[in-house]
Amino acid sequence: MKTQAAERNMRPTVSLTTDFGLKDPYLAEMKAVILGINPNANIIDITHDINKFDVRTAAYTLACAAPFFPKGTVHVAVVDPGVGTRRWPILVQTPKAFYVGPDNGAATLAAGNEGIEHIFRITNRRFMLSTISNTFHGRDIFAPVAAHLTRGTQPTELGPETEKILTPKFARVAKKKNMLISEVLHIDSFGNIITNIREEELHSINIEETVNIKINNHKLRMKLGKAYADVKKGEPVALFGSHGFLEISVNQDSGAATFKVKAGDRITLFRASR
Amino acid sequence: MKTQAAERNMRPTVSLTTDFGLKDPYLAEMKAVILGINPNANIIDITHDINKFDVRTAAYTLACAAPFFPKGTVHVAVVDPGVGTRRWPILVQTPKAFYVGPDNGAATLAAGNEGIEHIFRITNRRFMLSTISNTFHGRDIFAPVAAHLTRGTQPTELGPETEKILTPKFARVAKKKNMLISEVLHIDSFGNIITNIREEELHSINIEETVNIKINNHKLRMKLGKAYADVKKGEPVALFGSHGFLEISVNQDSGAATFKVKAGDRITLFRASR
Amino acid sequence: MKTQAAERNMRPTVSLTTDFGLKDPYLAEMKAVILGINPNANIIDITHDINKFDVRTAAYTLACAAPFFPKGTVHVAVVDPGVGTRRWPILVQTPKAFYVGPDNGAATLAAGNEGIEHIFRITNRRFMLSTISNTFHGRDIFAPVAAHLTRGTQPTELGPETEKILTPKFARVAKKKNMLISEVLHIDSFGNIITNIREEELHSINIEETVNIKINNHKLRMKLGKAYADVKKGEPVALFGSHGFLEISVNQDSGAATFKVKAGDRITLFRASR
Repeated sequence: MKTQAAERNMRPTVSLTTDFGLKDPYLAEMKAVILGINPNANIIDITHDINKFDVRTAAYTLACAAPFFPKGTVHVAVVDPGVGTRRWPILVQTPKAFYVGPDNGAATLAAGNEGIEHIFRITNRRFMLSTISNTFHGRDIFAPVAAHLTRGTQPTELGPETEKILTPKFARVAKKKNMLISEVLHIDSFGNIITNIREEELHSINIEETVNIKINNHKLRMKLGKAYADVKKGEPVALFGSHGFLEISVNQDSGAATFKVKAGDRITLFRASR
Repeated sequence: MKTQAAERNMRPTVSLTTDFGLKDPYLAEMKAVILGINPNANIIDITHDINKFDVRTAAYTLACAAPFFPKGTVHVAVVDPGVGTRRWPILVQTPKAFYVGPDNGAATLAAGNEGIEHIFRITNRRFMLSTISNTFHGRDIFAPVAAHLTRGTQPTELGPETEKILTPKFARVAKKKNMLISEVLHIDSFGNIITNIREEELHSINIEETVNIKINNHKLRMKLGKAYADVKKGEPVALFGSHGFLEISVNQDSGAATFKVKAGDRITLFRASR
Repeated sequence: MKTQAAERNMRPTVSLTTDFGLKDPYLAEMKAVILGINPNANIIDITHDINKFDVRTAAYTLACAAPFFPKGTVHVAVVDPGVGTRRWPILVQTPKAFYVGPDNGAATLAAGNEGIEHIFRITNRRFMLSTISNTFHGRDIFAPVAAHLTRGTQPTELGPETEKILTPKFARVAKKKNMLISEVLHIDSFGNIITNIREEELHSINIEETVNIKINNHKLRMKLGKAYADVKKGEPVALFGSHGFLEISVNQDSGAATFKVKAGDRITLFRASR
């Protein structure tokens, strides 16, 4: 393990999560800035296809991915409708990682899961590009700050510590009698409907084998399975996905299209009468 | 060449082919797992835009790309409708590369071209993540296994050898009199119609200069060219593309849209009466 | 800085700009060829979503991104409707970078900004793949040439020097009385309308605070701001973007969709009568 740790220091990881898409030069400019400062950085794209300005989905996506990254990773999350105005560029430090981006909540969920140790406002221009635009802080502030962090710059060098950080609003699962009221966190590209329900919550209302689900005034009854292919092709199944959330899926088809569901929608689960 | 080989061992290549798309955290999680185990790996995305569950196109795409990868590459192909059910995770060893993924045929074509030496079932949990979900073996099994292979893990350590491997069904070119009946392997993003006909097959029916082609009940006659721009913009041309297959194309336009052709369609070629 | 320079030589950067898209094996084949020759190269995708054959947008995109790349980068730009015909593969050398691709103008703008020192026709087959297709020079010529350049191959080894290079046609800003007639260079994925007007040109007609703009027979009056969020959500703003060009934007919405504008369109700016 000693060897591995040494290698990690030599090839630090930077993750990028943005709503920039892939057709414009913006993303490449961020990567060019990072590799110009630290050519040994390993850059991993989390996604750049966040819907424009959708901080909530950025927060969800980064929180899913972060646990799988090596210790010491610098996560850069830039979904930034307020670029150039009075929102602070911040660094969030946890025992496992650094999170860099505008203070709009995109990193709060992921960092909160790891335990936030310190928050710094990024004010020291020494670690930014020499010219800072009003429209692209991803390139001019966050990319160079991330690269400098991978080379050993200390968080305290970046600016003053603060206590304030924005937190995106995610509904909690509400429990009423034998019922769970949940919110759809995300529709993935397979059309899986990812809810905010965790296994212990489902068990708390004694649901096993089958679940009754109300989506958009439709009442459905489906198997509580383990794998998508536990039901026949085209049939619905509820299961716990790879990040621990209950998903409502259709085997080899899109659950979201079948049931006309989108992120943010309410879904009610209840125990069958018998 | 000695230097180059030494470098290769130090910067091994892992390729990724999936149907995960780019908007979800899944792909980044695989990369994070790989670089967490081997920070020196070079990861090359082949594609993540395979149509959902389209094992055949994954097989075609990987077979096109594989010959251009360095010796020792670990190819990971995960198009996996049966994840979490009874299909085996396998490793296929060839003289040139390793192929890792579910046993559903996605790697068989590429590995078969190189010559399959050994097939192993992956059962040793030591080389997987400590928690294995039922819905995402790409991250929990295949990514860590690939990364360990790049660090020198021997195939025999992964699990028992087997003889069995699924092979996807691709039609062979049928020859009747002066006619070739072919199947469309792929429509590329330029709209080129890529058939399964190789140069020697076309020559076997003495086609030169011009070809007669029947697609969807339309009879076409076009030049057998060398480059797309051998005909005027908007005109059709048949030529052998960069993987040795006969393509039916329209210069600077989409052949597939022009002739309403999709993958799997039949195309008949025949020699002009004179 | 000595350390940084040394690292750069050890981890040289190659950028890729193409119209290949991401679903086919083509892009991965270029990367596999590059890393097969130089496993230490850092490859940065600028974009592969250039509209098919749109050399002008490739030129714009590469010119935006290039200034942010480290010294010594090899930029590969392959948007190549004439592949396999009589257009030359060329190398353009500037004080800061190399540009490799077909001689169709895609690199001329970026290289011109840095100052073109030498142009070479690439003719030496020693630096190409052993088999060269007529349809994919990106893989067979440009990728291996780029990789060899990162390993120290000298430009003079590639082929004879030439003076000729194609230059894409971009309209200049025309000035009439108190009016600027400009061309839309690009619509980015946010829907920002990026014109070819630079700050000094706008100042030359004494525009401050507000601008009058004529687009497609609509007359608009909008704030000359600094950041997108200088106006309310849904309101238009003109500002200088992160590459120094005047953009016409709608805060958190698409300017291009709102005003029905596309790349190449004319936009007229004039000073308000009072």
